[in-house]
Amino acid sequence: MLIECIPNVSEGRRTDIVEAMARAIRGVASVRLLDHSSDASHNRSVFTLAGDAAGVEAAVLALMERAVADIDLRTHKGEHPRLGAVDVVPFVPIEGVTMAECVALAKKVGAEIARQFAVPVFLYEEASTNPARKNLEDIRRGEFEGLAAKMRAPEWAPDFGPPAPHPSAGASVVGARMALIAYNINLATDRLDVAKKIAAAIRQSSGGFRYVKAAGFKLADRGIVQVSMNLTNYEKTPIFRVFEAVKREATRYGVAILESEIVGLVPSAAVTAAAEFYLQLEGFKSEQILENKLRQPLG
Amino acid sequence: MLIECIPNVSEGRRTDIVEAMARAIRGVASVRLLDHSSDASHNRSVFTLAGDAAGVEAAVLALMERAVADIDLRTHKGEHPRLGAVDVVPFVPIEGVTMAECVALAKKVGAEIARQFAVPVFLYEEASTNPARKNLEDIRRGEFEGLAAKMRAPEWAPDFGPPAPHPSAGASVVGARMALIAYNINLATDRLDVAKKIAAAIRQSSGGFRYVKAAGFKLADRGIVQVSMNLTNYEKTPIFRVFEAVKREATRYGVAILESEIVGLVPSAAVTAAAEFYLQLEGFKSEQILENKLRQPLG
Repeated sequence: MLIECIPNVSEGRRTDIVEAMARAIRGVASVRLLDHSSDASHNRSVFTLAGDAAGVEAAVLALMERAVADIDLRTHKGEHPRLGAVDVVPFVPIEGVTMAECVALAKKVGAEIARQFAVPVFLYEEASTNPARKNLEDIRRGEFEGLAAKMRAPEWAPDFGPPAPHPSAGASVVGARMALIAYNINLATDRLDVAKKIAAAIRQSSGGFRYVKAAGFKLADRGIVQVSMNLTNYEKTPIFRVFEAVKREATRYGVAILESEIVGLVPSAAVTAAAEFYLQLEGFKSEQILENKLRQPLG
Repeated sequence: MLIECIPNVSEGRRTDIVEAMARAIRGVASVRLLDHSSDASHNRSVFTLAGDAAGVEAAVLALMERAVADIDLRTHKGEHPRLGAVDVVPFVPIEGVTMAECVALAKKVGAEIARQFAVPVFLYEEASTNPARKNLEDIRRGEFEGLAAKMRAPEWAPDFGPPAPHPSAGASVVGARMALIAYNINLATDRLDVAKKIAAAIRQSSGGFRYVKAAGFKLADRGIVQVSMNLTNYEKTPIFRVFEAVKREATRYGVAILESEIVGLVPSAAVTAAAEFYLQLEGFKSEQILENKLRQPLG
């Protein structure tokens, strides 16, 4: 079983504090800290870790303990909106685990955070059953500074924990979602209007694929344009289908695809699915990949 | 560093002996035994293991010790040609290791086999520098029964060890080669001539791709035909290039591709390469695959 977890923490300047949080995560044997990065202007750090359910739970609670001790939202300033010391905690199913199990884990960890640290917890995305509290942006609106007033409204009672913010650690938003893939396609043209029209054609918000967010940009230094995308569910809207749609739309403007790129991490299954599609591979199983057979069980 | 090793052993009937050999391999901490299977009519077993250089060396020597103790070629009968108790030992580079390093490892292990067990060793494939002793079939011709006579000719002096066969364990053939991918493409037709013509067009022996062996077969129960292939170097003759060539040749006969299949294990890079080709992915790195980042170092 393999679950990814990407806690976002409201500290991106004091490197000793960030390092102490990284050490707390690394201290959990059945979890791997894959990456962590800090942004000083956002005053925020993002940790990427993976392991089994018990492992990621223990790591999030260890991180929470450090964050509650070291971060005070009353004096925290940064460009990025935030509600709490550990601001957002998404659990992402990668292998041998269902979304339902990640939702259950989000609820278990949310309840533990409330119990151990007296921090109120809001569930979001797949873990939320309230449509008004599904999107992170809706929950975070008003930020830490507006949270006490917001929580006085009965519709903003937390899913777990006290009915008011923790004085210094605010509130945490915990949930489950699919892995997000940052995917860009560069077009062999400098026509920004073409990139914008293609982005509009393929994104959910203007009638395109359900799990695609897209925008058109100019890459001025290279004299080309880019369709920049987030794929929010690679199983239901796979990379190859988006690629083929962009290619077909571009043809209508006499434009070719120059190249595409995946930014950052991607689950193996999202890449393999493209090979299976184009090679018309039948009955292929991820255990046939030699490296997958070798992966030591975590924990 | 990840090396695959696939020793072929001349015992496929006495399961206790085969299990003892499997245990000997599993006893090496830095190696994983991925698979082993026995064929009674061949009277032969194939072990698939992987690990770092020191690990696979130790595992092969542990296997050799059991095989020399338990197998006597003088009383061994089976359909498959064989020269020795541990008949063939190929080392295959998978990740973070070059072919040259696998050749060096084959020579090191070959010398150790000769020294520890007084078994003569012939180097083959990439580890051989003698064109007449590159192909396994050429080295194995005459089998165990003809080996003593064969080795009296000076051109059949072994690369390591005594100038005559081990009385009960014969000789071993040790070398290095690329991973072999068993790949089939099924055509939406029952015309065997089409499968045979396509096989002839794409295989090395009749003018096609250098690292492709191919033949056309009927799948009588499904009423279709198959181009059955071995890809012997997926870096230089990649899967997607072979697939596209077969598709194009089939079109010339008005035939479509029904599906393709990979049989058994395949290195991750061979599958990812197809996704990179079709999605025109630039700058993609295997470390971007989340599961690859997680793999514990072996040993």
